[in-house]
Amino acid sequence: MKQRIKHQTAAMLVIGNEVLSGRTREANAWLAAQKLFNKGCKLAEIAVVPDQADAIVNSLNRLRKQFDAVITSGGIGPTHDDITMDAVARAFATTLIEHRIIVQAMTEHFGEDGMNDGRRRMTRVPQGAKLIRCEKTIAPGACIDNVYVLAGVPDIFASQLESILLDFGDEQRPYIRHEIDVSLPESLFAKALADIQQCYNDVEIGSYPHRCGPDSYGKICLSSQEADRLSAAMHDVEAMLQAINS
Amino acid sequence: MKQRIKHQTAAMLVIGNEVLSGRTREANAWLAAQKLFNKGCKLAEIAVVPDQADAIVNSLNRLRKQFDAVITSGGIGPTHDDITMDAVARAFATTLIEHRIIVQAMTEHFGEDGMNDGRRRMTRVPQGAKLIRCEKTIAPGACIDNVYVLAGVPDIFASQLESILLDFGDEQRPYIRHEIDVSLPESLFAKALADIQQCYNDVEIGSYPHRCGPDSYGKICLSSQEADRLSAAMHDVEAMLQAINS
Repeated sequence: MKQRIKHQTAAMLVIGNEVLSGRTREANAWLAAQKLFNKGCKLAEIAVVPDQADAIVNSLNRLRKQFDAVITSGGIGPTHDDITMDAVARAFATTLIEHRIIVQAMTEHFGEDGMNDGRRRMTRVPQGAKLIRCEKTIAPGACIDNVYVLAGVPDIFASQLESILLDFGDEQRPYIRHEIDVSLPESLFAKALADIQQCYNDVEIGSYPHRCGPDSYGKICLSSQEADRLSAAMHDVEAMLQAINS
Repeated sequence: MKQRIKHQTAAMLVIGNEVLSGRTREANAWLAAQKLFNKGCKLAEIAVVPDQADAIVNSLNRLRKQFDAVITSGGIGPTHDDITMDAVARAFATTLIEHRIIVQAMTEHFGEDGMNDGRRRMTRVPQGAKLIRCEKTIAPGACIDNVYVLAGVPDIFASQLESILLDFGDEQRPYIRHEIDVSLPESLFAKALADIQQCYNDVEIGSYPHRCGPDSYGKICLSSQEADRLSAAMHDVEAMLQAINS
């Protein structure tokens, strides 16, 4: 059986004025970040842009060339501010079509009389797109080339995301994370931690203070796809902190 | 007295692997979005990039040319993954200097013996930068040209943000938001709502379903810097919904 080539890097493009105006706290990129990490796919950038065609097209064209795949969230409903499908089609220099399968599914569900302009609008996907279906909604998302167009409503996004995750990462090599509590100012271990990082180019080491100053505390966070190397780096960091504390 | 020219558009550049790996839910752009909205400044894009020099430099150079100002968050501590000041200097093709005032303040606070490599690292800002001080920390942020470099630790970010907000928006023209609860499927009012939007180019109208389908509910959200126009648009939307419901 042919092995599918999976995406090793991804970007998330969040489309929505409601996030930029501070009305809504972003939730979909936050979920995708966790899921992709657990799948062993590197989320390399998150961009949040307004419901404006130029902004969407420019960001999408930049991100889809730069990374293996792009997941978009938002703007696929029936109202005037839902312009993501139009923008994706423009980014790929293609047209929107009313997809036969969506028209059929929606007509069955809502009846001929229920197929108003708004619902008709939601049957449109870029020419050649594959549908991303989920149990939460009749109107599907769409995949064209390396771009996955998902809904903005969080429970629909989550459900659609589950159905595309098979295309991402590497089942055998998820990222793993370990954290160490630290009650020292960062500046006291910064040099030694940098030296450890130098020895582990396959382990990402970060330091995250909750509070700065003399009564500081925080966490050192290590993550990697290599379990053995992660353990070895953990051991080195713990030994280093012990040496400073003693 | 000379009137300061304030930034009418802004972008937020969040720097941190911890957000992209799903470890940390982004909080600083979320705060800035709310504050800028209330100040009457349009937040036009949020980008989240990793602790990598090229990613930071490229995004910063793109955003600072595209918008009136950029606020960055994260990567200004003493550890090896804190590379924002270096990247900002590179973006402006300038060098980092140990700032006399920061050296003095930190030396007073920590003593000569306390000025280790990590703290020394935190005295560096791009040549020509102005300091962004706040009561939460001795190590300041920095402003160079239209770029404001703030901390990633949320309570420090919040405090530094307060101290720069005077440079943004228009006190006399904050954005105002009103919301209307709706218990109709979006597709039933999409066309009529689009027609209202057409009449108000100075009011942003969005529709945000919590749930889709026949038992749907959600909110129509209107925002504007023009209080009178906002009221008029609200009135039109309410009348439209009433007509559909009756």
